[in-house]
Amino acid sequence: MKRILIIGAGRSSSNLIKYLQSQISENGWEIVIGDLDPEAAKERLGRSENLVWFDINQEESSGEAIENADLVISMLPAKFHILVAKLCLKYNKHLLTPSYVKDDMKQLEPEIRQKGLFFLNEIGLDPGIDHMSAMREIDAIKRSGLELLGFESFTGGLIAPESDNNPWHYKVTWNPRNVVLAGQEGTVKFIQEGKFKYIPYNRVFRRTELIEIEGFGTFEGYANRDSLKYIDRYNLTGIPTIYRGTLRRPGFCRAWNVLVQLGMTDDSYEMANLSDMTWRDFTNSFLYYHPTDSVELKLFHDQNIPQDSDIITKLKWLGIFDNSPIGLDRGSPAKVLEHLLNQKWKLSPNDKDMTVMWHKFTYRDKTTLRLVEKHLSLVVIGDDPVNTAMSKTVGLPLGIAAKLILSGKIKRSGLFIPTLPEIYEPVLNELEEYGIKFKQRIVSPET
Amino acid sequence: MKRILIIGAGRSSSNLIKYLQSQISENGWEIVIGDLDPEAAKERLGRSENLVWFDINQEESSGEAIENADLVISMLPAKFHILVAKLCLKYNKHLLTPSYVKDDMKQLEPEIRQKGLFFLNEIGLDPGIDHMSAMREIDAIKRSGLELLGFESFTGGLIAPESDNNPWHYKVTWNPRNVVLAGQEGTVKFIQEGKFKYIPYNRVFRRTELIEIEGFGTFEGYANRDSLKYIDRYNLTGIPTIYRGTLRRPGFCRAWNVLVQLGMTDDSYEMANLSDMTWRDFTNSFLYYHPTDSVELKLFHDQNIPQDSDIITKLKWLGIFDNSPIGLDRGSPAKVLEHLLNQKWKLSPNDKDMTVMWHKFTYRDKTTLRLVEKHLSLVVIGDDPVNTAMSKTVGLPLGIAAKLILSGKIKRSGLFIPTLPEIYEPVLNELEEYGIKFKQRIVSPET
Repeated sequence: MKRILIIGAGRSSSNLIKYLQSQISENGWEIVIGDLDPEAAKERLGRSENLVWFDINQEESSGEAIENADLVISMLPAKFHILVAKLCLKYNKHLLTPSYVKDDMKQLEPEIRQKGLFFLNEIGLDPGIDHMSAMREIDAIKRSGLELLGFESFTGGLIAPESDNNPWHYKVTWNPRNVVLAGQEGTVKFIQEGKFKYIPYNRVFRRTELIEIEGFGTFEGYANRDSLKYIDRYNLTGIPTIYRGTLRRPGFCRAWNVLVQLGMTDDSYEMANLSDMTWRDFTNSFLYYHPTDSVELKLFHDQNIPQDSDIITKLKWLGIFDNSPIGLDRGSPAKVLEHLLNQKWKLSPNDKDMTVMWHKFTYRDKTTLRLVEKHLSLVVIGDDPVNTAMSKTVGLPLGIAAKLILSGKIKRSGLFIPTLPEIYEPVLNELEEYGIKFKQRIVSPET
Repeated sequence: MKRILIIGAGRSSSNLIKYLQSQISENGWEIVIGDLDPEAAKERLGRSENLVWFDINQEESSGEAIENADLVISMLPAKFHILVAKLCLKYNKHLLTPSYVKDDMKQLEPEIRQKGLFFLNEIGLDPGIDHMSAMREIDAIKRSGLELLGFESFTGGLIAPESDNNPWHYKVTWNPRNVVLAGQEGTVKFIQEGKFKYIPYNRVFRRTELIEIEGFGTFEGYANRDSLKYIDRYNLTGIPTIYRGTLRRPGFCRAWNVLVQLGMTDDSYEMANLSDMTWRDFTNSFLYYHPTDSVELKLFHDQNIPQDSDIITKLKWLGIFDNSPIGLDRGSPAKVLEHLLNQKWKLSPNDKDMTVMWHKFTYRDKTTLRLVEKHLSLVVIGDDPVNTAMSKTVGLPLGIAAKLILSGKIKRSGLFIPTLPEIYEPVLNELEEYGIKFKQRIVSPET
């Protein structure tokens, strides 16, 4: 009997656990869940056997749990994966995570290979389904002898249309801190028509593009950090255009940019006197002094916002001009803003989330020699607050990959992301059974 | 015979050495200059005796030089002061530097005091003359029983009017890297009318104020990093307004802000393909792609610059649209921009520099109860490319302070900046003999 250890029983583990439970009897597996918090783990598993509680920082107890497993899935916050990885190496266990490969993980590569282990990272939604769906298409285009001239890819964790009831058309469906700090991970880098392009943080939310997805309307995309590294990862050396981004609903970025420009997303210092401040004081601290002008007037003037702009609707709705106390004793502007967004953009019990992915592949038709764009789009709507679209699209790829490994279908050893056909083909195929299926559309950019 | 060791014989040491040489015979002192480069040291001293060469990282040889001195003046780049300080503690020597006190230096305080030593930092121009001239006035205002309602202070290292022949009205008269990275040291913090105010980097060069200095015309000031820490340093608890900034000529900041907004001052990443790029390519890499629009058109459109703006004159003069090669193999955008500015803003052999300082003290007149502003201004013009205004205003305070210490006029021990009357009075008085003298003006802001 093979044993799968899932470390971290947060909300995003729900669908992973559900999927693996559905595969248990058929495959004769056992699932063990390890978490700091036994109650959370019990809630996910639905019963109390097969639960262990340990702190991943305590090597002894977490090592014992890992030693007793055949495969480990780390659902912990990204910074803890390296601790799990080292224990997996120590006890010779395979490892899966949905997070980006960091340098510390990369350094383990030779040892992973030497021990014949298989560590698969970036096997969630983004990163994860994005790699797999893009590589399947890129490989297919290359097989047909076409030259890929452009690749653009956008993903977003959003609110479903039926739950979309605020002027930002956005709610917090995942880590709110990441929402506030989005764009601050480093200067954006990409290539367009053979030219390297750079966008600093202060302009990321102004250089957006509009994207249409049939049946779901219009989205806007802002650029993600380093698109250049995908040239190597996707074998696209020499490609003239490569660009990756994040999706929001139109109008979000222009209004968000006001908060960025004011300095409300700054996480570099602690604000003074927070406990005495209202939301209005908070906003005023980023504006010039004037003896009589209102905070609203100063902000609209300073940011060049016309009186009839929908930006004003969004900002007022957010409560940044309210006279109510902030209710925090200390924090950076980013922390204060996150505190506000957690209240305003909170999911209601009946709200459904939505994950959206969109790829554009540009190439030249072999016979007409005209440019062709192939668009792939994926929209997944959550079932309920537990079975969210985010939990499904992160958890299912992990679960399916776990099955592939335990059933011996992957013969590799080393450190991987899911860009190989032997991973992406079976995972994408099985995802379709769960309704996670891309639609495709061919358009001609010249008409 | 007392011996003064000056470590670092860069250009900024010229006037310090000249001053101390003029005091040698009267006081029976000896000056020793230590530097990595014997030629530079010889050029400053004018002769070859009393020179030692050592690397401050080599503890043995630098320790020997320090052991043989009575007082040490470190003119090295700021990061090396801590090495000198530790050796001064080891061999029980007093120390002077013109640089900001950093945390590592602060940690030495108890030991400095315990050993009866006197370490004086921030005794140059800014920091230095700014502390002394401000504290003299603040102490005088307090003595007359007035309540200080506002303190603003600006300093700039600029080009003298007779050498001002480019549209930026600016040349590199000190460290060019600091010019490029100005404003990136952290979010600006200050208090205005009792309200804490914050300015993020992307807005520093847009929130400027104009300052008039009689005989020298108009300047513009942008805010410096943390003005709040001067509340403690200057004993100004409860002051409603405190603001510190840097001076440029009007129009500089608006044009510089374009370079900031584009991302040209970003020092966080290495640019790709630099060796193949022209200045025009460099500029284009920060602009959106367009199949036919020129780089100029895209930049003016993107940054909302009207066709007849003087910003265009400045940008074109700088050469950022030129088709000539950059001539660097690697570097961050900030490094590339510094490379350009070193060429375009280079001092000619006959150019003179100018240092400018301006303070504004606001209080209420005792009898009329009306607001009064007292302005203090200092303008120093360099004599020639060696005896620059910067070298004089940094070197003379150091030299005068050295004299005070060696002649036993300062009885303190510990770590200090020159905010004490026993330091600022004699230093400011003697500076006047060298033409470094503030002018004052009383104005009423209500008329």
